[in-house]
Amino acid sequence: MNADSITRRTERDEVLAKAAAAKAVLPALRAGAPDRKNTVLTAAAAALRENASTIITANAADIERGVAAGMSGALVDRLRLTQPRIDAMACGLEQVAALADPVGQVVCGRTLPNGLKLTQVRVPLGVMGMVYEARPNVTVDAFGLAFKAGNAALLRGSKSARQSNTALVEILRRVLADHDFPEDALQLLPCQTHESVQDLITARGLVDVVIPRGGAGLITAVVTGASVPTIETGTGNCHVYVHADADIEMATEIILNGKTRRPSVCNATETVLIDRAVAKNNQFNIIHAIQDAGVVVHGIPAELKDICGQGLVEADESDWAEEYLSMDVAVKLVDGIDGALEHIATYSSGHTEAIVTKDLTVAERFTDLVDSAAVMVNASTAFTDGEQYGMGAEIGISTQKLHARGPMGLPELTTTKWVVIGRGQTRP
Amino acid sequence: MNADSITRRTERDEVLAKAAAAKAVLPALRAGAPDRKNTVLTAAAAALRENASTIITANAADIERGVAAGMSGALVDRLRLTQPRIDAMACGLEQVAALADPVGQVVCGRTLPNGLKLTQVRVPLGVMGMVYEARPNVTVDAFGLAFKAGNAALLRGSKSARQSNTALVEILRRVLADHDFPEDALQLLPCQTHESVQDLITARGLVDVVIPRGGAGLITAVVTGASVPTIETGTGNCHVYVHADADIEMATEIILNGKTRRPSVCNATETVLIDRAVAKNNQFNIIHAIQDAGVVVHGIPAELKDICGQGLVEADESDWAEEYLSMDVAVKLVDGIDGALEHIATYSSGHTEAIVTKDLTVAERFTDLVDSAAVMVNASTAFTDGEQYGMGAEIGISTQKLHARGPMGLPELTTTKWVVIGRGQTRP
Repeated sequence: MNADSITRRTERDEVLAKAAAAKAVLPALRAGAPDRKNTVLTAAAAALRENASTIITANAADIERGVAAGMSGALVDRLRLTQPRIDAMACGLEQVAALADPVGQVVCGRTLPNGLKLTQVRVPLGVMGMVYEARPNVTVDAFGLAFKAGNAALLRGSKSARQSNTALVEILRRVLADHDFPEDALQLLPCQTHESVQDLITARGLVDVVIPRGGAGLITAVVTGASVPTIETGTGNCHVYVHADADIEMATEIILNGKTRRPSVCNATETVLIDRAVAKNNQFNIIHAIQDAGVVVHGIPAELKDICGQGLVEADESDWAEEYLSMDVAVKLVDGIDGALEHIATYSSGHTEAIVTKDLTVAERFTDLVDSAAVMVNASTAFTDGEQYGMGAEIGISTQKLHARGPMGLPELTTTKWVVIGRGQTRP
Repeated sequence: MNADSITRRTERDEVLAKAAAAKAVLPALRAGAPDRKNTVLTAAAAALRENASTIITANAADIERGVAAGMSGALVDRLRLTQPRIDAMACGLEQVAALADPVGQVVCGRTLPNGLKLTQVRVPLGVMGMVYEARPNVTVDAFGLAFKAGNAALLRGSKSARQSNTALVEILRRVLADHDFPEDALQLLPCQTHESVQDLITARGLVDVVIPRGGAGLITAVVTGASVPTIETGTGNCHVYVHADADIEMATEIILNGKTRRPSVCNATETVLIDRAVAKNNQFNIIHAIQDAGVVVHGIPAELKDICGQGLVEADESDWAEEYLSMDVAVKLVDGIDGALEHIATYSSGHTEAIVTKDLTVAERFTDLVDSAAVMVNASTAFTDGEQYGMGAEIGISTQKLHARGPMGLPELTTTKWVVIGRGQTRP
């Protein structure tokens, strides 16, 4: 047996052993009263601040390895932990402590004709796996939300953030132990090989859900390779449709905000659909404003050449499906609301689509027929976000239809059970 | 290319073409007002009754093939359609028509500080696949619930019920067309080969959810082989734990009801855990009552030989995990509530577990720590059922934790979307 296959066998054993350990601590987590959990979260925030220099030293080693391996500037920036970023992670934990505890919430209940008392109660999901890229802040966010919802977290972070994640998890596990919670409520999985992801997502009977967080490739690999339940998050090819009867100034503001506020996030606007009926001058104004903001327009030359001039990048089929995550946008002219609906149905990733219109009937048709997690009228796609929606912190934005759709907060990290109280009833 | 591979290619093409056709009719289904849908369901019930002789003739051909192929009596009985059974299917459709329409229900909503009006609304899941065995009634049930929830149904029934299913689906599609709904809201998939199931459960982008309904083998094959979302249903290794402080007469009634009422259904009691502290005489009474009812006891001879005599079947490890679905039950002595909890955590399928006790603290501990879809105190496991819970008809009982847990009615066949109404808001 060569060294590689020994690494694999060892990794697989480690993943399964950690998953079993996570399952074993669930009763202790289920029994954790809200106050006790909140004390842990607040203490964890303090511990991160106290140990900032340890974290920064570990992170520096990851950065050094990354730079030596030729990691891009953007990735290095994502990986880097600084004093303010550590403070932001700590604040995140304090915010989670302040949120309502989802465990034990009664969703509904009734007394049946035979006197049985039926209650549907929120309970933890159980063992929750996360697979993510080189963003060490996800380590802390995922722990905070998973722990508050009564779940044990198995974190499979990127190899390039290994030392940062190790330092963070050690600190957090110490806090758990100090407060009489099992340390194995939080465990970091091995990340030497890609296959350790496979070990996690096929651990049926041990793992209750895996949430991938990262680029489209990572998400597709996890969702298609998993035999445990998964929640698909985050790919956002968000559209803004400017209807014939739109306030053009409002449309321009909404497009600029959705595209340029933070181009790298999943709620950024990626495609603008302009109704052919929008008067020619207005179309000019919108597109020139986009270009003036430094955004590169991808479109069909026959439609846009006169307006964009040399600045136009010729679009092909792939542009309509593209999540640029950059200062690029696809622009297309469409024939009325039906043209817009058809384009969206064909190319949308089901995240967020917006219409700008003053027409009530058209707005209603758009909200009824667009099949996405969020459908907006006269608002920026950038609003699709757990904090903006008033849900507190979010673990990601689900673009699937089962279990959770849109921003996922604490309740989405729980399941329910039916508690039935009788006095000896049997079924006729 | 041989005949088999041509069949396969043709089947695969047919599954994908039908899935695409199903996706194409979704806007028409989403636009279907509750009244119009209910008219279709009532007309469908009438059409089944009117065409009963056509259905029975088609069914007779399936039965004849089954008998010739040596199908067991129990399976033939499950496959057989009679006048009363057709009437029962028709009544089922009428009951679904009478239920509240889940589409458009507002789950929650709020106005954000910036004035955005946020509403979470129930919408159809989309294209719903069902994979099931030789029970033609599932064809009608699945259509009724899927259609009412605004979903297009792709039904992959058993090859042995092919002619029955074809007759039923033809009748139902004609009713759809007569009421200006697209026929492709209901389609029967080819069933010549097992691989056509694979075609359905890997049709990512076309199929929104697949629900398997049948034995454990079918369910595991669908859930582990799927790359589209699935909902696991129905395996029920349900436990009754008789606590030291139980009313023994009540315990006996609950066990007999759970085991003998309908032994072949998933909410039947399969394992009885008797506390060692239950006085010896009482233990005798319970077990003798089980045997007197004609139930075969599987257990550990050292524990039960004295009570059961020759009637005891020696249990091995596999008995604790077994879903007998017959007049058999596993019986085991356990040490207190912790012994019961541990046994259940190890062997339960997560369906329904019950405790019989008069002790409040013990009852609370049991309902808190048992991690199953339903946890009952002093009631028969037979109560886990959509109709019993007051939800109306059910499509199955989910034993997974994501999306739906326990009986799944109409709301569980929908998802939600966020509708956001603004007046030009952008995000700072």
